[in-house]
Amino acid sequence: MSRELDSIMRPESVAVVGASTRAGTVGNEIVCKLKEYGFKGRLYPINPKAGEICGIKALGSVLEIPEKVDLAVIVVAKDIVLPVIDQCNEKGIKGIVVVSAGFKETGAEGAKLEQELLEKIRQYGMRMVGPNCLGVINTEEKIKMDASFADALPLSGSTAFTSQSGALGAAILNISKDFDLGISQFVSIGNAADITAETLLDYWKDDVNTDQVLLYVESIANPQEFSRLSKQLTKEKPVLAIKAGRSSAGASAASSHTGSLAGADLAADALLKQSGVIRVNSLLEMFEVAEAFANCPVPRGKRVAIMTNAGGPGIMATDAVCEYGLEMAALEEETKNYMKSYLPEAASVKNPVDMIASAPLEHYRNTLKALINDGNVDAIMVIYLPLMNLDPIDVSKTVMDIKGQYPEKPIVAVIMGKNEFFDKIKKIEKNIPFYQYPEPAANAMSKLYAQRKWQQRPVGKEPLYEVNRDKAAGIISKAVSENRSQLTTLESIDVLDAYGIRTCKYAFAGDVDEAVREANKIGYPIVMKITSVKISHKTEIGGVIVGINSEAELRDEYSALLGRLRDKNLEDALDGVIIQEMVKGSREMVCGVATDPQYGHLMMFGLGGIFVETIKDVAFRVNPVTDIDVREMVQSVKAFKILQGSRGEKPANILQIEETLLRLSQLVKDFSFIKELDINPLKVSDKTGEGIAVDGRIEVVPEEALKILSDESIILL
Amino acid sequence: MSRELDSIMRPESVAVVGASTRAGTVGNEIVCKLKEYGFKGRLYPINPKAGEICGIKALGSVLEIPEKVDLAVIVVAKDIVLPVIDQCNEKGIKGIVVVSAGFKETGAEGAKLEQELLEKIRQYGMRMVGPNCLGVINTEEKIKMDASFADALPLSGSTAFTSQSGALGAAILNISKDFDLGISQFVSIGNAADITAETLLDYWKDDVNTDQVLLYVESIANPQEFSRLSKQLTKEKPVLAIKAGRSSAGASAASSHTGSLAGADLAADALLKQSGVIRVNSLLEMFEVAEAFANCPVPRGKRVAIMTNAGGPGIMATDAVCEYGLEMAALEEETKNYMKSYLPEAASVKNPVDMIASAPLEHYRNTLKALINDGNVDAIMVIYLPLMNLDPIDVSKTVMDIKGQYPEKPIVAVIMGKNEFFDKIKKIEKNIPFYQYPEPAANAMSKLYAQRKWQQRPVGKEPLYEVNRDKAAGIISKAVSENRSQLTTLESIDVLDAYGIRTCKYAFAGDVDEAVREANKIGYPIVMKITSVKISHKTEIGGVIVGINSEAELRDEYSALLGRLRDKNLEDALDGVIIQEMVKGSREMVCGVATDPQYGHLMMFGLGGIFVETIKDVAFRVNPVTDIDVREMVQSVKAFKILQGSRGEKPANILQIEETLLRLSQLVKDFSFIKELDINPLKVSDKTGEGIAVDGRIEVVPEEALKILSDESIILL
Repeated sequence: MSRELDSIMRPESVAVVGASTRAGTVGNEIVCKLKEYGFKGRLYPINPKAGEICGIKALGSVLEIPEKVDLAVIVVAKDIVLPVIDQCNEKGIKGIVVVSAGFKETGAEGAKLEQELLEKIRQYGMRMVGPNCLGVINTEEKIKMDASFADALPLSGSTAFTSQSGALGAAILNISKDFDLGISQFVSIGNAADITAETLLDYWKDDVNTDQVLLYVESIANPQEFSRLSKQLTKEKPVLAIKAGRSSAGASAASSHTGSLAGADLAADALLKQSGVIRVNSLLEMFEVAEAFANCPVPRGKRVAIMTNAGGPGIMATDAVCEYGLEMAALEEETKNYMKSYLPEAASVKNPVDMIASAPLEHYRNTLKALINDGNVDAIMVIYLPLMNLDPIDVSKTVMDIKGQYPEKPIVAVIMGKNEFFDKIKKIEKNIPFYQYPEPAANAMSKLYAQRKWQQRPVGKEPLYEVNRDKAAGIISKAVSENRSQLTTLESIDVLDAYGIRTCKYAFAGDVDEAVREANKIGYPIVMKITSVKISHKTEIGGVIVGINSEAELRDEYSALLGRLRDKNLEDALDGVIIQEMVKGSREMVCGVATDPQYGHLMMFGLGGIFVETIKDVAFRVNPVTDIDVREMVQSVKAFKILQGSRGEKPANILQIEETLLRLSQLVKDFSFIKELDINPLKVSDKTGEGIAVDGRIEVVPEEALKILSDESIILL
Repeated sequence: MSRELDSIMRPESVAVVGASTRAGTVGNEIVCKLKEYGFKGRLYPINPKAGEICGIKALGSVLEIPEKVDLAVIVVAKDIVLPVIDQCNEKGIKGIVVVSAGFKETGAEGAKLEQELLEKIRQYGMRMVGPNCLGVINTEEKIKMDASFADALPLSGSTAFTSQSGALGAAILNISKDFDLGISQFVSIGNAADITAETLLDYWKDDVNTDQVLLYVESIANPQEFSRLSKQLTKEKPVLAIKAGRSSAGASAASSHTGSLAGADLAADALLKQSGVIRVNSLLEMFEVAEAFANCPVPRGKRVAIMTNAGGPGIMATDAVCEYGLEMAALEEETKNYMKSYLPEAASVKNPVDMIASAPLEHYRNTLKALINDGNVDAIMVIYLPLMNLDPIDVSKTVMDIKGQYPEKPIVAVIMGKNEFFDKIKKIEKNIPFYQYPEPAANAMSKLYAQRKWQQRPVGKEPLYEVNRDKAAGIISKAVSENRSQLTTLESIDVLDAYGIRTCKYAFAGDVDEAVREANKIGYPIVMKITSVKISHKTEIGGVIVGINSEAELRDEYSALLGRLRDKNLEDALDGVIIQEMVKGSREMVCGVATDPQYGHLMMFGLGGIFVETIKDVAFRVNPVTDIDVREMVQSVKAFKILQGSRGEKPANILQIEETLLRLSQLVKDFSFIKELDINPLKVSDKTGEGIAVDGRIEVVPEEALKILSDESIILL
């Protein structure tokens, strides 16, 4: 879709409705900016009092415009916005940008007005940016449109950018010039009544001028749509996002700022991960990483070579490379021998390569070439710490010259000098990114590599297992019809079982022969527990017997149990026994599903037992999850090593554990009204390596469950 | 000590030996820099060929100087350094800076030369900076000495700085000017043969011109001395340190760079923590934090108020404040009501205070005053995102004006605009630090608060417990005399017991009556294990019986055991039984001691059981530790919540666990040859909350143990 956004982003004619003759007003500013920036189409300031604005004669209304108009930028007072939209429709205008404020952000009345505005937009088949926004920019040579009241006049480039916050948008446009980062398009989505970040992800996918996308968002309006669209985009173009409101205090501030639900940050974080969006946590980091993507190919792997003229920075860079999850390349012998041929004795040809302080340009040139040609090197960091001998600009030019000849591998430069170097290098055309310190350079390299990994990552499938949906529905129905939102442990286990999840097997037995039959079915060793409504403390009378290994033992223990009850005159208290599979295993995991008001079902997996809350070694993903999602989830927790059997235990059956999560995902997709589901512990059997649900807990939203299940005639109301 | 460093840092007369007439050489550069920077003492270039250097007539040797000389800066070829030192001694010079390279950093031969140099220095009662260094700087108005070949000519200020890397030193001096950070003294310690970072920590403690100290180190020569001296300094002046070589690849690069042992980074990290040194991980962070200390008092607490003219930055700042461990202040009702009186409806008077885009200077002024006067606020972050209405310089001046009137609380400013603002603000005298983004501002505030906490932290004691040292020595002697470096579990437990550490009680019993006697002493429940040299798989014949609750049960189980042995014709295989205390508890901790080749004994505490290696929830401290150190150690692990009984368990006896660590510390102080010691698990008793050593492992260095114990006549060789 979305060529319809062309009327907004690539218009041939623009009307600015509410254009003002008064300098300093937004209505004046936008017309002047459009003109100053050199808009290639026709520009029509609209002002009922007419007059001349920035040298252009104003017209009284859009209806007076003598040609077809693509875009109307509306800056009138909020009460006049709706009539203006009517006029625009009369004129056949399809693209609308509402800069005017006074809508949802001001409270209930404004929200009502915004709703009316949106209804008109839909009714007229228009598309709209805003309201309450900063405007839109397209730097494309054929278009050259700066229809915003940010004072940026940004550099032209290949980075598209959208911001939920107008002020931050302005700041980013401003600062981008210091970073020499060229913009392709900028859209301030404001209240995002119609066009959202999601719409733009779709639009920019096909924009030939855009190679990467930056987002600043405080809330994600439609998480599922965001995920679907960004998954398509991110495989081709990197998307960097700041999602503010990471802390709960920040999220609360975000909610009151935008009037939108922020949702749990761990859900947002999971969603971005699953969508291949690279999350950054500050504006500075966003610029630093964008700089790398704008000037580097993605590397084939994560092996980094460092070359430097000073030892200290080489060590700091090595620390940073390792801390950002990259590896120090083991250089080929040939490379090392070659470097030995010209570097002085005191130099180090081991990575980090320390060419020492005396290194002339020739050494930079030869060493960089050697590292590029080394098959063990995927990416290179060149460090120059300005000393007396070389001008950093000369070093930079030398590096860029080599990069021009060998463009395949990413090269980043770290010039640990004063700001004045960065002022100078801005004026030179670049083919590599420049940093002042090794740490942001290493971080940017790690993000380049993350993009590579994402590109290589299979898309993933959502397998559909054969399950006994009816049985599960029946169990839930029973609970709901009994006014219970919480299923019992046995009900929960039975629901899980109906979905093919490996649960701890159990059976009820009324007498010893039945106990033996069930035990034989389940397999020894087993646990026997008395069931009795009269006896509350089962362990005190020895009512839980673990580790029964054979029929003979079971019969003995059963009589012994009867004996103990007889001794206490409790013989008639016995209702029967539960025969339960005994799962031996010291590794206890947890998995489950929670519901976030904004993001919906969240899958969870991690270290279980008493550690869930304190150690928090758990991973989250937003449902629905693919097989690849759950694989990454399982591998991402620290306890994965324990699953692999790091301490000599039998390796867990990882595939079966992944399947458990996928089946859980299917379960909550089938029953959207499940509010919470916990398997804690999911015990890893020492014998088989399987993850076995020993305990389970399911809670539903009864009203929703009643509605859905009765619609399906499972509950008859 | 250390007024003796005055001859180097505050000389009245300086000789530059090896001064050169040739521009661009180090020997020329240093003389010119001294002159250019305006050295207030007398300056004597020394060159055997005489001539004129930077307008000063050179002399042939130091002996020709017509007055007493305090400092000789030596830049001659390495082979002539020693004869020059002899001449300096003849002249009575006490302060030496050896800039010349070619010593330890070049290998074995250079190391030998350096040793000879150091011996002369010691013999002559001199003090020396270097060799292989960049020089020294003192910006003090009375001194004005830049005896370095860095091209900085630094700004004068109150920050002292030393670097193990000359090149990084030069870079830092350079970049400090961009940050407008004034330097009091700079010492490039180079190979640090005589004067080390430790020496300077001591010297700068009493330097009235120095308010904070910056360190760049790749290795710490004498960790115990470093700790002792920095503990004295850090209570009064903040010390910020970069310790490079955090990653193992980085540490390996550091070792080959300096030729010094780097030691494990976790040891370095622990040492810095215990010494109150604030660790920073990059140059940029060092500058950002130093900027805060140079312009802020330390706050009383960690409650931060944020005021902003744009919502987005307020949210980002809130995230950062929380992530750096600070808190968002809950503003007083009075403050909020006051702000409501002048802020527009759309503003938010809840922290973060969003004054919205239209805020005039007056609102900045009133809001800042209100926040300063709010008793719930310890520190304030003022954010201005440049929009059309205000010049950021005007906002800055307004904030600084208020700060001038109310100097008590730290205030930091975040101006999210272009670099040109920072160029401008540099030229204005400041009383607050300025940042471009909220994240470094929040980080700097968190470091201010860390300094406050350190100042308030009690010094701590190393308690001396009454222990049975002789018994422990005897057990170890026995093992060592049997050629074992590894003590058995029982020996290890006995050594721990001799040091008053609560261990799992046990005893050997030859028959059932003895078993009963020992069990009565230990207290029920107990575990009984057969001991038998013939039977290797004790569990298979039911040789380990847990949960014996009474004498009767014990007698029954004992006969049952004999019965089982009889059935298998193994009656004569029984050597006896071990009666062992049964410790019930699901919380398993680990504690122990490891030895780092550079830092010595390292204490360890954390989550035990199967999680030590994977979850790594462990804390380290360098021995000796104080009671405060171990308290912080115990509280710093995530599992501390589990100890507190977060899940309804009986709270652990935290004091007893702390004492366990202190007793371990005493043990390894007494027996320095203990190489490794592990208590895993230290099981927390559900009954008493005590930490009980259920298993123990001690390994010694046999040669050292033999030597020390035989010196004490415990082992007779």
